[in-house]
Amino acid sequence: MKLGMIGLGKMGFNLVQNLLHHQHQVVVYDVNPEPGQKLSELGAVPATAIEELVSQLASPRVVWVMVPAGKIVDQVLDTLIPLLSQGDIVIDGGNSHYKESIARAAKLKQHGIHFFDVGTSGGTEGAAQGGCFMIGGDRNVFPAIEPLFQGMAVDQGYLYAGEIGSGHFLKMVHNGIEYGMMQAIAEGFEVLSKSQYDYNYEDVARVWSNGSVIRGWLMELTQNAFSKDPKLDSIRGVMQSSGEGKWTVETALDLQASTPIIAMSLLMRYRSLETDTFNGKVVAALRNEFGGHAVVQNNE
Amino acid sequence: MKLGMIGLGKMGFNLVQNLLHHQHQVVVYDVNPEPGQKLSELGAVPATAIEELVSQLASPRVVWVMVPAGKIVDQVLDTLIPLLSQGDIVIDGGNSHYKESIARAAKLKQHGIHFFDVGTSGGTEGAAQGGCFMIGGDRNVFPAIEPLFQGMAVDQGYLYAGEIGSGHFLKMVHNGIEYGMMQAIAEGFEVLSKSQYDYNYEDVARVWSNGSVIRGWLMELTQNAFSKDPKLDSIRGVMQSSGEGKWTVETALDLQASTPIIAMSLLMRYRSLETDTFNGKVVAALRNEFGGHAVVQNNE
Amino acid sequence: MKLGMIGLGKMGFNLVQNLLHHQHQVVVYDVNPEPGQKLSELGAVPATAIEELVSQLASPRVVWVMVPAGKIVDQVLDTLIPLLSQGDIVIDGGNSHYKESIARAAKLKQHGIHFFDVGTSGGTEGAAQGGCFMIGGDRNVFPAIEPLFQGMAVDQGYLYAGEIGSGHFLKMVHNGIEYGMMQAIAEGFEVLSKSQYDYNYEDVARVWSNGSVIRGWLMELTQNAFSKDPKLDSIRGVMQSSGEGKWTVETALDLQASTPIIAMSLLMRYRSLETDTFNGKVVAALRNEFGGHAVVQNNE
Amino acid sequence: MKLGMIGLGKMGFNLVQNLLHHQHQVVVYDVNPEPGQKLSELGAVPATAIEELVSQLASPRVVWVMVPAGKIVDQVLDTLIPLLSQGDIVIDGGNSHYKESIARAAKLKQHGIHFFDVGTSGGTEGAAQGGCFMIGGDRNVFPAIEPLFQGMAVDQGYLYAGEIGSGHFLKMVHNGIEYGMMQAIAEGFEVLSKSQYDYNYEDVARVWSNGSVIRGWLMELTQNAFSKDPKLDSIRGVMQSSGEGKWTVETALDLQASTPIIAMSLLMRYRSLETDTFNGKVVAALRNEFGGHAVVQNNE
Repeated sequence: MKLGMIGLGKMGFNLVQNLLHHQHQVVVYDVNPEPGQKLSELGAVPATAIEELVSQLASPRVVWVMVPAGKIVDQVLDTLIPLLSQGDIVIDGGNSHYKESIARAAKLKQHGIHFFDVGTSGGTEGAAQGGCFMIGGDRNVFPAIEPLFQGMAVDQGYLYAGEIGSGHFLKMVHNGIEYGMMQAIAEGFEVLSKSQYDYNYEDVARVWSNGSVIRGWLMELTQNAFSKDPKLDSIRGVMQSSGEGKWTVETALDLQASTPIIAMSLLMRYRSLETDTFNGKVVAALRNEFGGHAVVQNNE
Repeated sequence: MKLGMIGLGKMGFNLVQNLLHHQHQVVVYDVNPEPGQKLSELGAVPATAIEELVSQLASPRVVWVMVPAGKIVDQVLDTLIPLLSQGDIVIDGGNSHYKESIARAAKLKQHGIHFFDVGTSGGTEGAAQGGCFMIGGDRNVFPAIEPLFQGMAVDQGYLYAGEIGSGHFLKMVHNGIEYGMMQAIAEGFEVLSKSQYDYNYEDVARVWSNGSVIRGWLMELTQNAFSKDPKLDSIRGVMQSSGEGKWTVETALDLQASTPIIAMSLLMRYRSLETDTFNGKVVAALRNEFGGHAVVQNNE
Repeated sequence: MKLGMIGLGKMGFNLVQNLLHHQHQVVVYDVNPEPGQKLSELGAVPATAIEELVSQLASPRVVWVMVPAGKIVDQVLDTLIPLLSQGDIVIDGGNSHYKESIARAAKLKQHGIHFFDVGTSGGTEGAAQGGCFMIGGDRNVFPAIEPLFQGMAVDQGYLYAGEIGSGHFLKMVHNGIEYGMMQAIAEGFEVLSKSQYDYNYEDVARVWSNGSVIRGWLMELTQNAFSKDPKLDSIRGVMQSSGEGKWTVETALDLQASTPIIAMSLLMRYRSLETDTFNGKVVAALRNEFGGHAVVQNNE
Repeated sequence: MKLGMIGLGKMGFNLVQNLLHHQHQVVVYDVNPEPGQKLSELGAVPATAIEELVSQLASPRVVWVMVPAGKIVDQVLDTLIPLLSQGDIVIDGGNSHYKESIARAAKLKQHGIHFFDVGTSGGTEGAAQGGCFMIGGDRNVFPAIEPLFQGMAVDQGYLYAGEIGSGHFLKMVHNGIEYGMMQAIAEGFEVLSKSQYDYNYEDVARVWSNGSVIRGWLMELTQNAFSKDPKLDSIRGVMQSSGEGKWTVETALDLQASTPIIAMSLLMRYRSLETDTFNGKVVAALRNEFGGHAVVQNNE
């Protein structure tokens, strides 16, 4: 198949490599020309503008958008709409909020353009060598883009999930689960680190990666991380987040779904952004008020 | 009534003041002679040893033990047993674990000595001016010590709770609730502190102390704390704990009682003891492994 | 002072009683004429329509809106705007979201109308006999309405909190704290109910209401509840919620404020709406898959 | 190697199969003679009593104990001690508490008998076809039993973890992580089940098992479970637990390690044992007290 790819960051770049590897023809564009030049060496056709990218595709065109979630997606879509024709297909492979995908699909539909929301998992490595794709959109149109996923995903690693929004919804929940699983693993090592035993954490992650109930990719990555820095001494425990975990909790609240593990995983990430907390001060001050318990002064 | 008081720390000292104020006669002892001397000025009879304390009481004697929970209680009881007679009464007013109180009562019973486990709440101020007492032990013997509580507690501020252990159990659970309530209040101020508004926290605590649903002593203490240090700038948010919260959670686990708020309050206290965490490092390292997300280096 | 009150539900009705008791003149209106008639017997002036209510007030008018949060507030405001004049004052005393209050104030400002967002706490009883009011809006205009609160609040039970939205924000956080405190108390009784002791819960709540660290209005209400139904046998543990707790958690997420206790209190409410859960089924099925652990069949 | 196996339940039975498959000679015993007879058909030597089992082994003997954790382990050890000789080796492959393993090792050491605590993961399937073994005990003696694990574990699926207790400690923490990961997965499906989309859960688990970040054995088992019962309609969400999760939380409390995810996973299991809760009743009653909010009657 022939398609256009807009956005050549870590994920987009790797997806194009993957698509080229599977004999697809890819016209590529990014505001930064560098990755497009690199990909041209691998067989991609670089475009210097979205107009040029679209002009190199024949109807029904397929354009995959892989840009940071939020306003940039809308800007790209606004640029694309007048350039595309009825029956063309736009794929948003980024981490967009499913409600935005629903709204964008409705907007594109007014122009006769099909829209698919595709959640992509597997990390940058998965994008390059075989990831996992969760796809929402029109069931009848899906066969037109299915060949893209057949090669690029690992075996059974793609799913037509349902109507529009269902792909990004699934990816969002996937990330919520991911938060919980990562925090569970991390808490396990927290207990080990405070225990009386002098465990080799890389060895522990390795044995848990082999035959245990909790084996899986995250445990293998844990092993990798410890192989590079046995006690993780070089880094701080600041847990950033990029939005999907928060969306999962917000969605759970809207659905009145009780999700303590996912919610707490998110809150522990927020907690990790601070070395001291105001709530801690309030509790410490209260203990001092009623029981005369000593507080830790700020200069101690 | 006449009684002996062993242990003249913050709580014991204030209890004696309270007892003296209510016309009880109190023979007092502490390893540190200073507080006993001070109390003698208020009318207490200081003893220089437990033997001397006991010798100044007539059977049936009442001895109130107010020492730190744990082994010291057992040491005091071991000293007391040979000095006491059948029918004498020992009160443990400290924060002992209820299971230890059950065991101690059984031991004393072999010598014909009655034992009451008394949980005391209201802080040091309550001990001095009117606290809250939760009392476990033999229902038939209780009338012999009830006069002590009638004056010393605030109105309706004492309860014969049930058989041995029930007083300390109730105090333990009281403290578990206290952990949860304090953390709830503290989290509320956490949200205020991060909000777009420039609240005066003392004013907030004052208005919430007057007529709101969440009014109560803890909110009044919050007001006091902010009146002294408007943003709590001088202290760190290190939340120590003295055991009863942990016991409540452990007991809840044993009873298969789901107590997320009390458990999380305790875990947040533990979290506050650290400025960085190993679990945070593990999550940060994992995010870097699969997504190439930047970590915060330890020297940043 | 003379003012209009729109909305005579439980809260509005009681506020009018309170206002009348403090010698204010109140023109009242509700879609349901009944409460207005009752209040007229106490001295209120009933109006049959908002137009009539406004016509009975002289500029600068003060209109207090006490209707359910959400669209009804906007409908009332849309009705009021053409009827009011520059310099008039509208108070929203309901549980509106602070962001909506900010937007409404901006809208009214275009018409020269002042807007105050007033969070009201203390329950229906507080509304009638002395509640707690948290007030946001223009500091310079506030003195014009302050007399209303001076009588109606308990002593020090009102606060000019800051600019527009700060009143409802404070009420929202108040309710978040309330969720946490209630759940903390409830979990304490959960542990008692599973313990080996046969506590009288009313007695426990009473002793904790007198002199303990956790004394306060919620504990007194707990005592009241147990006095009517000693084991709460007649009711089910379904914990409804009316929005502010959810808003607090959503706001905390937006502010990256870690609020585990408030969040878990909300999630436990959602959990209580179900007698069985899908997540429980998944865990049970998984245990069966890897360990052959028996599941509970749906007909057991 | 030749060894004895005491305890032929699901795990012990499968381990023997695995050992026989790897050309070890196994003398087997269970209070129930049936599994021993079955295993004799596969080449095991059944014994009718522990004495007989021991008598068929030559010094230095290796005896693997695979019985339910708790007193039965002690009973078996008490039976074994007089039958064994200095230099013999006992392996406890069950889910014993690490502190008990430390105490048992000390007891056996008095008789010159070596003791290894071996945590076994991978479920019943892993026991039969290749599991994961975490081994604590004397490093110098370990080579004598290492050949057992080389065949029976999957590749790199065994670890000499450290001194006595470290194997069972590691298995305990493994199970704590398992609780958290299972609950995270389950909560994800909880959100899906309440969403506007009609997902096929088996398909979802399949796509997440292929190439996603959260792929692993638990996700594959989730797929298996849904393949048998697409909506898990036949079972109830009652989440039993067998002890290690509780031990992990208790240990975390002792170590002051903040483990909210593992703790909450356990508490949600306890919560699932009840269809209604006392804490829910308390909150519902309180809402009724202060706000007049309707409660759900028990007959509704």
